[in-house]
Amino acid sequence: MYRFACDYQEGCHPRILKALTQTNLEQTVGYGCDPYCATARDLIRTAAKAPDADVHFLMGGTQANTAVVSALLRPHQGVLTAETGHIAAHESGAIESTGHKVLPLPSSDGKITAKQVEDVINAHYADGNHEHTVQPGMVYISHPTENGTLYTRQELYDLSRICRAYHVPLYMDGARLAYALTAGGNDLTLEEIAAKVDVLCIGGTKCGALFGEAVMILKSELKSDFRYILKQRGGMLAKGRLLGLQFLTLFTDGLYTEISEKANRQADKIRDALKKNGFPLLYQGNANQIFTVFTNDILAFLNEKYAFDFWGKPDEYHTAVRICTSWATDDEAVKDLIDSIKAAAV
Amino acid sequence: MYRFACDYQEGCHPRILKALTQTNLEQTVGYGCDPYCATARDLIRTAAKAPDADVHFLMGGTQANTAVVSALLRPHQGVLTAETGHIAAHESGAIESTGHKVLPLPSSDGKITAKQVEDVINAHYADGNHEHTVQPGMVYISHPTENGTLYTRQELYDLSRICRAYHVPLYMDGARLAYALTAGGNDLTLEEIAAKVDVLCIGGTKCGALFGEAVMILKSELKSDFRYILKQRGGMLAKGRLLGLQFLTLFTDGLYTEISEKANRQADKIRDALKKNGFPLLYQGNANQIFTVFTNDILAFLNEKYAFDFWGKPDEYHTAVRICTSWATDDEAVKDLIDSIKAAAV
Amino acid sequence: MYRFACDYQEGCHPRILKALTQTNLEQTVGYGCDPYCATARDLIRTAAKAPDADVHFLMGGTQANTAVVSALLRPHQGVLTAETGHIAAHESGAIESTGHKVLPLPSSDGKITAKQVEDVINAHYADGNHEHTVQPGMVYISHPTENGTLYTRQELYDLSRICRAYHVPLYMDGARLAYALTAGGNDLTLEEIAAKVDVLCIGGTKCGALFGEAVMILKSELKSDFRYILKQRGGMLAKGRLLGLQFLTLFTDGLYTEISEKANRQADKIRDALKKNGFPLLYQGNANQIFTVFTNDILAFLNEKYAFDFWGKPDEYHTAVRICTSWATDDEAVKDLIDSIKAAAV
Amino acid sequence: MYRFACDYQEGCHPRILKALTQTNLEQTVGYGCDPYCATARDLIRTAAKAPDADVHFLMGGTQANTAVVSALLRPHQGVLTAETGHIAAHESGAIESTGHKVLPLPSSDGKITAKQVEDVINAHYADGNHEHTVQPGMVYISHPTENGTLYTRQELYDLSRICRAYHVPLYMDGARLAYALTAGGNDLTLEEIAAKVDVLCIGGTKCGALFGEAVMILKSELKSDFRYILKQRGGMLAKGRLLGLQFLTLFTDGLYTEISEKANRQADKIRDALKKNGFPLLYQGNANQIFTVFTNDILAFLNEKYAFDFWGKPDEYHTAVRICTSWATDDEAVKDLIDSIKAAAV
Repeated sequence: MYRFACDYQEGCHPRILKALTQTNLEQTVGYGCDPYCATARDLIRTAAKAPDADVHFLMGGTQANTAVVSALLRPHQGVLTAETGHIAAHESGAIESTGHKVLPLPSSDGKITAKQVEDVINAHYADGNHEHTVQPGMVYISHPTENGTLYTRQELYDLSRICRAYHVPLYMDGARLAYALTAGGNDLTLEEIAAKVDVLCIGGTKCGALFGEAVMILKSELKSDFRYILKQRGGMLAKGRLLGLQFLTLFTDGLYTEISEKANRQADKIRDALKKNGFPLLYQGNANQIFTVFTNDILAFLNEKYAFDFWGKPDEYHTAVRICTSWATDDEAVKDLIDSIKAAAV
Repeated sequence: MYRFACDYQEGCHPRILKALTQTNLEQTVGYGCDPYCATARDLIRTAAKAPDADVHFLMGGTQANTAVVSALLRPHQGVLTAETGHIAAHESGAIESTGHKVLPLPSSDGKITAKQVEDVINAHYADGNHEHTVQPGMVYISHPTENGTLYTRQELYDLSRICRAYHVPLYMDGARLAYALTAGGNDLTLEEIAAKVDVLCIGGTKCGALFGEAVMILKSELKSDFRYILKQRGGMLAKGRLLGLQFLTLFTDGLYTEISEKANRQADKIRDALKKNGFPLLYQGNANQIFTVFTNDILAFLNEKYAFDFWGKPDEYHTAVRICTSWATDDEAVKDLIDSIKAAAV
Repeated sequence: MYRFACDYQEGCHPRILKALTQTNLEQTVGYGCDPYCATARDLIRTAAKAPDADVHFLMGGTQANTAVVSALLRPHQGVLTAETGHIAAHESGAIESTGHKVLPLPSSDGKITAKQVEDVINAHYADGNHEHTVQPGMVYISHPTENGTLYTRQELYDLSRICRAYHVPLYMDGARLAYALTAGGNDLTLEEIAAKVDVLCIGGTKCGALFGEAVMILKSELKSDFRYILKQRGGMLAKGRLLGLQFLTLFTDGLYTEISEKANRQADKIRDALKKNGFPLLYQGNANQIFTVFTNDILAFLNEKYAFDFWGKPDEYHTAVRICTSWATDDEAVKDLIDSIKAAAV
Repeated sequence: MYRFACDYQEGCHPRILKALTQTNLEQTVGYGCDPYCATARDLIRTAAKAPDADVHFLMGGTQANTAVVSALLRPHQGVLTAETGHIAAHESGAIESTGHKVLPLPSSDGKITAKQVEDVINAHYADGNHEHTVQPGMVYISHPTENGTLYTRQELYDLSRICRAYHVPLYMDGARLAYALTAGGNDLTLEEIAAKVDVLCIGGTKCGALFGEAVMILKSELKSDFRYILKQRGGMLAKGRLLGLQFLTLFTDGLYTEISEKANRQADKIRDALKKNGFPLLYQGNANQIFTVFTNDILAFLNEKYAFDFWGKPDEYHTAVRICTSWATDDEAVKDLIDSIKAAAV
């Protein structure tokens, strides 16, 4: 059984394991104040051409999202997001546990538009009773989205323009950012993203690290006191250097994009095989997540050798699945899967 | 410079690193549902002779404490603790961020007594306006405490008896539990602890793991739905097996107590040296944390070679410090420190 | 200008003012422990034939809703409601401020069905990752709804049956309950409601009182410690007797239903006039709220003499409005409005 | 039995009842947007010589305190207060329910000093690990305090100076402010207070109103979006005019200070009687709260005719009580009480 179910089923890239091993018995101060964290911060700032950004390391995505939302919003404000956004759908009410409402926007592919955001904000203030409703206080987008889709440069620039016009911070959850940066057709660099969003979460867990996310605060007004919030949200790792070492490794010699590029090329091959063999692709997107539909029989056949992620039941006879590659995906397994897809389609 | 400042300045015990390395490219399901977590849970239940306990793995201590408090209390309830307890003093309001008041009890050594708990509960209900105040809803103790002291069997049994008499759950934060179990003079086994508390946090981060805490829920009524809370608090690690593997290793072949015992013996030697050379021990306790007072001059002399944790300023001319050993402390460094203490005392 | 905009634009029913005046200089104990509150509680229990219910008095609807939700849910649970429910739409995130997600269900008329509730609960537990999402923990319905519609006996009984089958408490927000009990076609008595819901809020503010809501807790398991929650939510009025006196008056000699019945009959006449003159009724419902659509010109004509509540813009040329009667509505004003509707329709 | 137990045992001043009665059937818009509220705001701004202040009306003290704290603090911040402060001791964790820690300062008489505040703030930032603790984010004082004591002009000016130097807002809870303004020896005018604090709560409930508190926001930076918070905290009364009418009445023709002055003179007489007859006054203070100690026998004798508030048990044989006068206290009852005190002392 080979697992294509998600991008967090293995440990970490060997170079990270090597870095952890080599430094294992070194003594450092805790809580992210060690030299490895400092170096990692610099590497990230350099990669994003954002020399003034604050960079904080956290342990996981839900923790990063709740820390950011909690730091940015006042009590009466909520966070706009696609209804499919991770914070809306899959965090067990973590955002609400900080006292804030998630304000979902309809989305068929995981993305939201500048127009949607503008319309909601305008409608809010046009309502004579707006003080009786939750004020839109920030915008959350994921990139790639939970549907594997990507914002184009134009779409991101438009969102950023609206957010800045209305003084509403724009936060990008890049849990899989590495895969976005190297996806076919992507026209957005890390530098451009960092210039257009106000807070950016650069994912490690799904992009080669054992665990960990780096939160960049790009807008000066939002930087104040974030380390208190980090601690309050349980996000200040005692052995903070573990996070520093991992991001230091990922941002040395282009590892972060090298390994995601390989995963994306593997995904491209699987997408090709699906298309050629008549299986639909549910969303447009060239990153490491593939969404398709099999008949139940074909799925049963494939499940003898491969695990996928259940995505839904379009009808009684079909099942939608997510197929993921990652930095760890084996080339042979991809070839084998493609052969099986061909065989299934006959 | 050798660091005796805390017990989380190195990485992890080599056996854990080996386990992570050997399994690195294995594929497992996420979120703590993998076989390593299952085995680790069994090992912990066996070690604690608590076959029916639920065991959950979390990433850090603040996260564990907030998850437990959040799971156990209703909105109008607070948590009784020594005023020096970690949740009262050093978590940036994490408990309050879940909506609950920390109810501090005076303590000169980090411990609280059954009588203090009983008196507070009785005083609460004796107050005709008790519904205008926060109801004591659970009791938090740390063992060892933040002052390095230990509860005796009698003290724990008394606390447990009172808590059960008043139907108030007793939670033990064992961030450094390994050091308690193997401290000189300790008369409490893991089994006895598990029989007397309702929820127990078994620390990994400070006891040989890279990171991670295991929360045992011993009382059936408190088990329901904890995994939701885990997720909501950002505590459900995607690659949950990392935690399983670490605890599996710590609870195989007695590693958890073997390495803490060594650290305690090193601490004993340092304590002896301090006593023999006229430096006071601030608290009674034979685990891995030592609290003493140096003149500023002596501290400056020692700081040329060793880092300690600042603990306070008894007066202008003296400084109190915490000296820690850990599973990683070097025997040579201990000898060297003892020589320096002698030299300083002359 | 006569205001038909809402049912809280006047003070209170003269009998209530008389009761407040007559007792004004009496001395009583505070916080709802006075004899007037005790009598009011008994009268409500008698009216609802629920001798064992707990009755608490609060100052307003948002306060009552947040107190109830906060008292009933654990942190990982949310509250199911029509998307149009007051807690979902018009409380500025009050529910979320207690840490809980509002789980909206689609509704075209303000009501939700037993099937919707059952489907959502089943879908939740059928999801393998349900611990990553918010657990449905209670059901909120308003009766009459925000659209002026009413649950039939069958609909309420079905909802109650499903809620009890799944152990999910059913809470009815009866901010305008008096108008429901006396609406044409209503087939639900207060006794039947109290037998089928677990918590019931009996509205005073919109039903003849100056202010105040009575929360009945009908299910024993939910009663514990509600007064603490009341205090924590700012709901324990120092001069609690003000609330007791008002509800005592409303539940003496049938005042609560007498005055709402009159308002409903006035509303019936307005509804008739609208229908006869070709103005649509947006929702089915015979209580004190009427929803219709006017051309902008007709609305401008009517607005010279009457204020309505803006309800929406179906298109550029039309405006939807809410017309309310209340215990205070003047018969002459109703006649005059009906004449104006006729005149406008010509 | 005459009740001297508190200052909220009667209804309201007759002029307020008259205002409510006269306007009872008038129609106004809701939520504090009516003309009575507007006039009341102007009268308060004029009385405080604070023409730019925002004035909001709320229903009770706990609600006002939680709304203010919630509006002013970020998540990692706490509120400094005397350990005896109402928010620390008697609000059932209302402040914590908004996510914030109450940071208590020792106090023997209900007051805190500028030096205490400065020392705590300095100690916070001097701690190398201050990000692991709760940041002092605002200062709460009550005036008069819960012990009936008053800040002198010098004390308030010193507090204000320190708060402004450290950019920490100063909030005064004036639940009994009327009694402070007219107490013997008071040297602080409303104007001076408004110039020195950043937010001020002007109490109505205990000072002649049926219920209600007016929150003045004096510092511009703190004004934004308070009405959302008001709504979220359940503090936006549907019939907001009830609050406007009451404060309008209290601030017309000096009623607010006229009635409190009378109560203070009555209290002075009781204080005199106690002193002359050998009963101790527990705190210095000339407002409407008197704290003394009786032997249990004397208390039993007095309790045959008068109710006091239980304040504590200094020892087995004595009981401390609070004696309150108010705007409603009867002159005959005061004379009678004084006679009884004399009789008891014999």
